[in-house]
Amino acid sequence: MRVVMKFGGTSVGSVDRIRNVAKRCVRRQAEGHEVAVVVSAMSGETNRLVSLTKEFTSDPNDRECDVVLSTGEQVSIGLLALAIREIGGKAKSFLGHQVKILTDDAFSRARISNVDGAALTECLSNDTIAVVAGFQGVTDSGDISTLGRGGSDTTAVAIAASVNADVCEIYTDVDGVYTTDPNVVPEARKIDKITYEEMLELASLGAKVLQIRAVEFAMNYNVPLHVRSSFNDNPGTMVVAAGENMESVVVSGVTAVTSESKVTIKRVPDVAGNVAKIFKPLADGGIVVDMIVQNVSENGETAVTFTVPTDDLARAEAVLQREAPDIATESNIRTDQNVAKVSIVGVGMRSHAGVAQRMFQILADEGINIQLISTSEIKVSCLIEKKYAELATRALHAGFKLESE
Amino acid sequence: MRVVMKFGGTSVGSVDRIRNVAKRCVRRQAEGHEVAVVVSAMSGETNRLVSLTKEFTSDPNDRECDVVLSTGEQVSIGLLALAIREIGGKAKSFLGHQVKILTDDAFSRARISNVDGAALTECLSNDTIAVVAGFQGVTDSGDISTLGRGGSDTTAVAIAASVNADVCEIYTDVDGVYTTDPNVVPEARKIDKITYEEMLELASLGAKVLQIRAVEFAMNYNVPLHVRSSFNDNPGTMVVAAGENMESVVVSGVTAVTSESKVTIKRVPDVAGNVAKIFKPLADGGIVVDMIVQNVSENGETAVTFTVPTDDLARAEAVLQREAPDIATESNIRTDQNVAKVSIVGVGMRSHAGVAQRMFQILADEGINIQLISTSEIKVSCLIEKKYAELATRALHAGFKLESE
Repeated sequence: MRVVMKFGGTSVGSVDRIRNVAKRCVRRQAEGHEVAVVVSAMSGETNRLVSLTKEFTSDPNDRECDVVLSTGEQVSIGLLALAIREIGGKAKSFLGHQVKILTDDAFSRARISNVDGAALTECLSNDTIAVVAGFQGVTDSGDISTLGRGGSDTTAVAIAASVNADVCEIYTDVDGVYTTDPNVVPEARKIDKITYEEMLELASLGAKVLQIRAVEFAMNYNVPLHVRSSFNDNPGTMVVAAGENMESVVVSGVTAVTSESKVTIKRVPDVAGNVAKIFKPLADGGIVVDMIVQNVSENGETAVTFTVPTDDLARAEAVLQREAPDIATESNIRTDQNVAKVSIVGVGMRSHAGVAQRMFQILADEGINIQLISTSEIKVSCLIEKKYAELATRALHAGFKLESE
Repeated sequence: MRVVMKFGGTSVGSVDRIRNVAKRCVRRQAEGHEVAVVVSAMSGETNRLVSLTKEFTSDPNDRECDVVLSTGEQVSIGLLALAIREIGGKAKSFLGHQVKILTDDAFSRARISNVDGAALTECLSNDTIAVVAGFQGVTDSGDISTLGRGGSDTTAVAIAASVNADVCEIYTDVDGVYTTDPNVVPEARKIDKITYEEMLELASLGAKVLQIRAVEFAMNYNVPLHVRSSFNDNPGTMVVAAGENMESVVVSGVTAVTSESKVTIKRVPDVAGNVAKIFKPLADGGIVVDMIVQNVSENGETAVTFTVPTDDLARAEAVLQREAPDIATESNIRTDQNVAKVSIVGVGMRSHAGVAQRMFQILADEGINIQLISTSEIKVSCLIEKKYAELATRALHAGFKLESE
């Protein structure tokens, strides 16, 4: 089997931990597998480097920032390769440009356009563990680029796709993907198997165990992911394409997000083009709008409500008052940071009627008022008052019987 | 004028110092020059990285050690480029493989085989300051290599040669090259101009201001060096080819080295091949032998005396007893760590008779016994008892009137 293993910054955060990762890689190889391993910078290192660059620039999208930031992973791969050899293994390190991992030139948040699997494949077929720097790539013109926070997950999946790996193992400090946050619901259960689409929804909704882009990449290239613990050998969560062998679970997980705020624009004249006047300037400003609801028109006027990340709230207000002054007047705009978005996710919804209705009923039974609703094929989200976030999560988790198989 | 500036680790040792270097580069450019700048890792950083690698390997000549070590300079160039832009300058950083600086694959002590000046020249002709990582290169197969301690000097000279720079300025914490160590002789004088050959001898003899390989490189490619202070604008020492405009000084400098030890092998049968039996195993063991003297033969036996770095002394003894057991018997070998080598250097010696004789007289007048002598065209070295090192240095500096022009 050909295996790509990925370890984050905590797993390589000290000399001893690097030794542990080395042992784990060598053991995996001894089981008869070809092994490539992707690592992040030692924990704290990327923050240290970011602080250094911030002394000189406030623009993180600078070519030179990526030159500095990419050194963190470079140190990790050199040390891990040495640690593997220290215990008798064979290893060779690869930087982004040595693989090579081609990206666009959007520095600090570059996207991978192509990965050349040739050098890695040669290394693997030579019984040598390929130790690859996460988070970094190289542009067409040879500049070093970085992929943004959590980019090492994406590197691992892209590497796995390029060498046709049988599985991409994401080692993390939790045992796998859970039905909901175990800190909120102690009965939360580890999910054995989940589809890319569900994982994508869960990741978008705040389950921090995997980067969204990594899941997208895995889905596009059909790379099986295995999210598992770096502390033990227990099987974790397999993230795979939907297939006949999937458990037919209606709801796989419950999430709650409290980082969004609600914006309402009242008295919008209900004529064609007015909604575009609101959302175009937001899009141009790079502000991601999430839930959108337009009220039924009354007296030729309507109200438009949506959510934005709370971090972007002030900027969203400013952009609207500047770009849509006739609609977004000061007296017409209302904002509310006191909201939470709870969601249920599951591929089973496609074939089961009444799931949304059951969610609404569970919330109503707890006396929780629903302010906004948005749905996709495999997800239902409700915006509620923030203080009910945990209560709603627990009620939904219990109501959909997620604690038991 | 096209100028290459080189700053060491102390000069870029903090955020503020990096800002100072940036100012200096921008000012040099504003004077109408094209500027490339080579920097080392921030002071302490290379030691930190070496310590990390030593946790996993005792072999510093490992490909992976260079992957780790080269990150120090990478951080420096990114930060310096940002600092230059912060004050309105234009800058672009270059790693060894981006330049590219081709080396052999002797990791940790690689030698530069070629430097491609094209990318740098394009950068310079674009009014942009090229910020180049010192100490690192890339091998034919794309591996990262490092040049060994002090390698940034060599990088600077090689860069200067590749872009046909008019001068390579080495910024340091002293004002230039001195006639001798000012800590030993307060009257030591800064030398205004010195030849490559003299500088080479001085560097070999322990003047730490410039790396020997950098001077060799400058001599081979005829790159004028300017060794000057990073703290002020005073002219330093120009290191250039010998020419008609040189001051015709007999002796340029005095040095003392106390890091060598003396080895004597007595009762060596005076037959052909016996001397080779002594020095071949030492050469094969990578032990650099310095001064060599063979006594006049007596009764068909001779004594051979030489010096080796004290760090290699124990190994030299072991090698000899193993590889030349019939000659280097335990009772025949004598070693002495209690020695110093004092030397005088100067191109003027070529045309002035009696310089060596004057040196012997000066030492004799101080009651200092000479144990060994070795000479080159522009250098005379004497091995003396260690406790006389400073006294000999002061006496020679005064005797050759180096304190005044």
